[in-house]
Amino acid sequence: MFFSSDNAGPVHPAIMERIVADNAGYQMPYGKDTIMDEVRDRLRDIFEAPEAAVYLVATGTAANVLALACYAQPWQTIFCSSVSHIHQDECNAPEFYTGSAKLTLVETQSKMSPEGLEAAISGQKPGNVHGAQPGPVSITQVTERGSVHSIAELQALTAVARAHDLPVHLDGARFANALVSLNCSPAEMTWKSGVDVVSFGGTKNGCMGVEAVIFFDPEKAWEFELRRKRGAHLFSKHRYLSSQMAGYLADDLWLRMARQANDNAAYLADGLRKAGATFLHEPQANMIFASWPRAVHRKLHEAGARYHLWGGSLEGADDEMVAARLVCDWSLPRDQIDAFLSHF
Amino acid sequence: MFFSSDNAGPVHPAIMERIVADNAGYQMPYGKDTIMDEVRDRLRDIFEAPEAAVYLVATGTAANVLALACYAQPWQTIFCSSVSHIHQDECNAPEFYTGSAKLTLVETQSKMSPEGLEAAISGQKPGNVHGAQPGPVSITQVTERGSVHSIAELQALTAVARAHDLPVHLDGARFANALVSLNCSPAEMTWKSGVDVVSFGGTKNGCMGVEAVIFFDPEKAWEFELRRKRGAHLFSKHRYLSSQMAGYLADDLWLRMARQANDNAAYLADGLRKAGATFLHEPQANMIFASWPRAVHRKLHEAGARYHLWGGSLEGADDEMVAARLVCDWSLPRDQIDAFLSHF
Amino acid sequence: MFFSSDNAGPVHPAIMERIVADNAGYQMPYGKDTIMDEVRDRLRDIFEAPEAAVYLVATGTAANVLALACYAQPWQTIFCSSVSHIHQDECNAPEFYTGSAKLTLVETQSKMSPEGLEAAISGQKPGNVHGAQPGPVSITQVTERGSVHSIAELQALTAVARAHDLPVHLDGARFANALVSLNCSPAEMTWKSGVDVVSFGGTKNGCMGVEAVIFFDPEKAWEFELRRKRGAHLFSKHRYLSSQMAGYLADDLWLRMARQANDNAAYLADGLRKAGATFLHEPQANMIFASWPRAVHRKLHEAGARYHLWGGSLEGADDEMVAARLVCDWSLPRDQIDAFLSHF
Amino acid sequence: MFFSSDNAGPVHPAIMERIVADNAGYQMPYGKDTIMDEVRDRLRDIFEAPEAAVYLVATGTAANVLALACYAQPWQTIFCSSVSHIHQDECNAPEFYTGSAKLTLVETQSKMSPEGLEAAISGQKPGNVHGAQPGPVSITQVTERGSVHSIAELQALTAVARAHDLPVHLDGARFANALVSLNCSPAEMTWKSGVDVVSFGGTKNGCMGVEAVIFFDPEKAWEFELRRKRGAHLFSKHRYLSSQMAGYLADDLWLRMARQANDNAAYLADGLRKAGATFLHEPQANMIFASWPRAVHRKLHEAGARYHLWGGSLEGADDEMVAARLVCDWSLPRDQIDAFLSHF
Repeated sequence: MFFSSDNAGPVHPAIMERIVADNAGYQMPYGKDTIMDEVRDRLRDIFEAPEAAVYLVATGTAANVLALACYAQPWQTIFCSSVSHIHQDECNAPEFYTGSAKLTLVETQSKMSPEGLEAAISGQKPGNVHGAQPGPVSITQVTERGSVHSIAELQALTAVARAHDLPVHLDGARFANALVSLNCSPAEMTWKSGVDVVSFGGTKNGCMGVEAVIFFDPEKAWEFELRRKRGAHLFSKHRYLSSQMAGYLADDLWLRMARQANDNAAYLADGLRKAGATFLHEPQANMIFASWPRAVHRKLHEAGARYHLWGGSLEGADDEMVAARLVCDWSLPRDQIDAFLSHF
Repeated sequence: MFFSSDNAGPVHPAIMERIVADNAGYQMPYGKDTIMDEVRDRLRDIFEAPEAAVYLVATGTAANVLALACYAQPWQTIFCSSVSHIHQDECNAPEFYTGSAKLTLVETQSKMSPEGLEAAISGQKPGNVHGAQPGPVSITQVTERGSVHSIAELQALTAVARAHDLPVHLDGARFANALVSLNCSPAEMTWKSGVDVVSFGGTKNGCMGVEAVIFFDPEKAWEFELRRKRGAHLFSKHRYLSSQMAGYLADDLWLRMARQANDNAAYLADGLRKAGATFLHEPQANMIFASWPRAVHRKLHEAGARYHLWGGSLEGADDEMVAARLVCDWSLPRDQIDAFLSHF
Repeated sequence: MFFSSDNAGPVHPAIMERIVADNAGYQMPYGKDTIMDEVRDRLRDIFEAPEAAVYLVATGTAANVLALACYAQPWQTIFCSSVSHIHQDECNAPEFYTGSAKLTLVETQSKMSPEGLEAAISGQKPGNVHGAQPGPVSITQVTERGSVHSIAELQALTAVARAHDLPVHLDGARFANALVSLNCSPAEMTWKSGVDVVSFGGTKNGCMGVEAVIFFDPEKAWEFELRRKRGAHLFSKHRYLSSQMAGYLADDLWLRMARQANDNAAYLADGLRKAGATFLHEPQANMIFASWPRAVHRKLHEAGARYHLWGGSLEGADDEMVAARLVCDWSLPRDQIDAFLSHF
Repeated sequence: MFFSSDNAGPVHPAIMERIVADNAGYQMPYGKDTIMDEVRDRLRDIFEAPEAAVYLVATGTAANVLALACYAQPWQTIFCSSVSHIHQDECNAPEFYTGSAKLTLVETQSKMSPEGLEAAISGQKPGNVHGAQPGPVSITQVTERGSVHSIAELQALTAVARAHDLPVHLDGARFANALVSLNCSPAEMTWKSGVDVVSFGGTKNGCMGVEAVIFFDPEKAWEFELRRKRGAHLFSKHRYLSSQMAGYLADDLWLRMARQANDNAAYLADGLRKAGATFLHEPQANMIFASWPRAVHRKLHEAGARYHLWGGSLEGADDEMVAARLVCDWSLPRDQIDAFLSHF
């Protein structure tokens, strides 16, 4: 009963097989491996972006901050949601990699609103040398609270950015989960909706540790390569990043795993709903934020269930509602969900 | 005939098997996996350092710059050899991670000399606010030119550092190759010889991408954890770093591979010597810098041999001596070496 | 009728005379001038802090960010008010000088509240490597909106910081204006109330361009000196900073100018109140935030009055209330205030 | 007998008078003062550069590092002489302001040679992501050892930079001293000789603390303004920087002071030469590096002479030659030079 994160499960066997298969002979280091050529072509196809610059790194934070650093000057501020990973969970890495850019927080429950973004940007004074200058907008899709912006919502956000002539970054640590939730194309969820650069996650969806950074306009390509190396994120044995990504993209495995993860979450959410849980946010992908009585939490913990309490604790009145975050990954067996629900 | 680097060969099958074996069920992320507990204990045993703080990262540059950043203040200068990897091959990552420390180069052919180091340190003026303040000393072992400092040589260098009250970092990207060359213990080559922190390489010696950073005094432990996260080098699915390192250390595999690599190089060097090549540096581990006539280089390239010319080119007089760098890894088949030598 | 800022008026003649008097013969550079010895002693006396480390820089931003950088690690966050100068008016200098620390904003109208500060600090998770670690608290006195924290209010804020073991910085760009408003001693407003380091302003109160940074615990002294030099803020002809500060402190000139400035503001505020203006914040020093009908703004602007509209514009309905910021410095002639008020 | 530096003497009375004269009424802050308009026009005239972007800062280090930061990317290296101020005397400020660029040292006695510069640049590998990328060239004029590059020598250096497509910065902390030594125009010594940006010193030549940064191509103007503010170098009471510079430029005062300083040095050098001193570098402006017997140093020190020994000490054999650095500024009375020479 492991629901604490989608970063705790195993690598999908097909990806592992691909890694093992690619572990023969010699490959040029530092991204010159032939597998990377294959991956680059595949991602350009998938995104309908034949000119895109495509790179691999090993962590989601690296993908985000290297991408943002190519667009944010040190005297600018990045606009992001108040619950964004880049603000809450990257230990000042965005500030570090941009050379001291600020983050301006758009007060957000789960999905950033265009009105909130507009207010945040309008609150800056471009051209006034005393304040931070407006910089890129970063949107998370799936959001950190499990919501998925619709295409219309994404476009409304990027329209705000465009109106202020600001570039747009998409933190897609759970890109595939969002995509299958929206049932749209990768191009629709990115450049066709005004996104300039995307962190395309693999790690949370069945890979070992690989994320792609995709620039739809390749003008930042060389700068990215220098920033990646300077950040110590250029792998010598790069083939093992390429290989993961190749396995991930083959035969729509990435989409199948994401569908499985989302289905798991939907099944779990359905069970929780029937059991009387209340939801902090409507689950739209593979994350659930829900509350139920403390007594049930206690039973679950005793039974070995792993998940994060969300702001509360196991101490207190039995019948008080306590919130939790539950994350499902592709690997979660259905009987584990049933076992979890059996404690309600 | 692949001699261009020890970062181009495959992962050792035993390590791959370990990774596959560890790819089951759930593991806590971010270094809380149980395999890391095993690795930490094992490295403490190997280094006879029960208090050591032990961390894993995925690239050698990350290991070096995160270790150095814990010891170098932004207004200091790091003392290193003029041919060091941290100076020549890390695209300003040391300057970036230290927040703008300088590198003071000790003019070096292969091994840094105590006299050169003493002169470099003495050339600074600690307490003079105008200049950079003296900071850590970084020594590479195996050096970037294939030499191995003897224990006495290491101690002579660290004695200079100590006399100026400076900490010592050891860049051990090829730690195992040096160790088997010296036939000493890891403790002797590090803390018993005055080293404070070591980058303990795995990637170039049969791993996929893993390096340990080992602090013999754990006072920097928490700072390192914060710097690692802020540098985007903390892996969520950390178990796959742990697993590599566990496989690497099991059954002395790391020493066996290093011996194999060094033996390969010795065999190749012997053949080259017999064929009349001259050596730029005496090969002491798994790297060879040697010169032979251009005509032979041409034949080798036509036959598909992969290695780096060292300052020369294939264009020019046939009988002119042209230098090359050759690196042998554990995986290099002996018949490939023979094939290479057959062109002389 | 110049009310736009207290950085637009002349240097007090007594300070200018002191500068002219000190402009003879030779003085050692870089803070080794004999005038600095005098200034250091004088400030230690004034603050009843015989061990304090005392430095001079030329801008308020330099004083703030160099002081903060001595207390904030790159992975920490600084707690400050949402309207603080360090957040709104220093173009990311705090982020730059700290090497990428974050600023956590305590939502504030004018004075930071202990509850707000407590909530901001409690919202962090010290020891959780993913988020920024709690760092120093920065309080502005006089606030950017013209309020003055009482001693009790200051102590309530620093008590919150202490409870979390966080150091406290006081941005005293208008230190003297606050001091005469509270009618307390410099020690009471700083170290006796839990302040660790203060930016002690001179520029806005009749100097040419000089601010002192005073560390009550001198342990950061050498680090500050290095940071000041590295920030390019160490003056070679430092005597002219010393001389300004010496003139400023002589014969209580600093207090007399501050009283004059505050009195000017009180007189103006009184006139505005009688004329029906409404106040956004209660003026407690030399700054006024008040609203009156647009038609009067128009008359004032036509008459040449200089001040900042605060969020509104001259365009629109005559009788609509439009806010303004008015700042009085010591040099403002009383008849100019009368002239200003005559337009109401 | 004060020869320790040209940063220890007084401000020229004419400049002080100008400051006093400008100390009346109100002036807009942050460089919007009307005096700055005058200064900008005057410098554009002097440099025959009607489009130039002109800014003032208070320290030479600030001028250098802000100028360089506009041209050097964080992953680049700046080429400068091994004795340059930016390397030896700015406590890593260039590395800090550029966000971690490296400095590549051209081994230099006093004047950088084109061959040395060419070798340093050619030693880099642009396009190789592992090493630092070539960045701007910084030339000091007058050099830190008292030499003056001829126009031909300057052009030879900038030609090397141009051939590699690199921008050129001129550190002109002693610009005027070089100019009168060469008897050429400011334009000839800068943009007509291939210089892109110059630090135009005032502080060492009779000002209080002011340096201009002049970009001949204004494309970096806005970036400079942001970097200056972010570096905490934008003065609120900017009029006092403007006023110094206005006084400095009026009636050729800057040239007259520089001539006086150079004449003082020539007179002193002549006396030293007659007294048997030997010269480390041929003095060409207002600095002298010369050696004479220790016994004479002892007498001079007893008599109160102030200057820097250059690598030696007062301890040792009487007749041993010991080197010294002597700097003359405009204010040095001729009889003080005679008094100094009388001890030989």
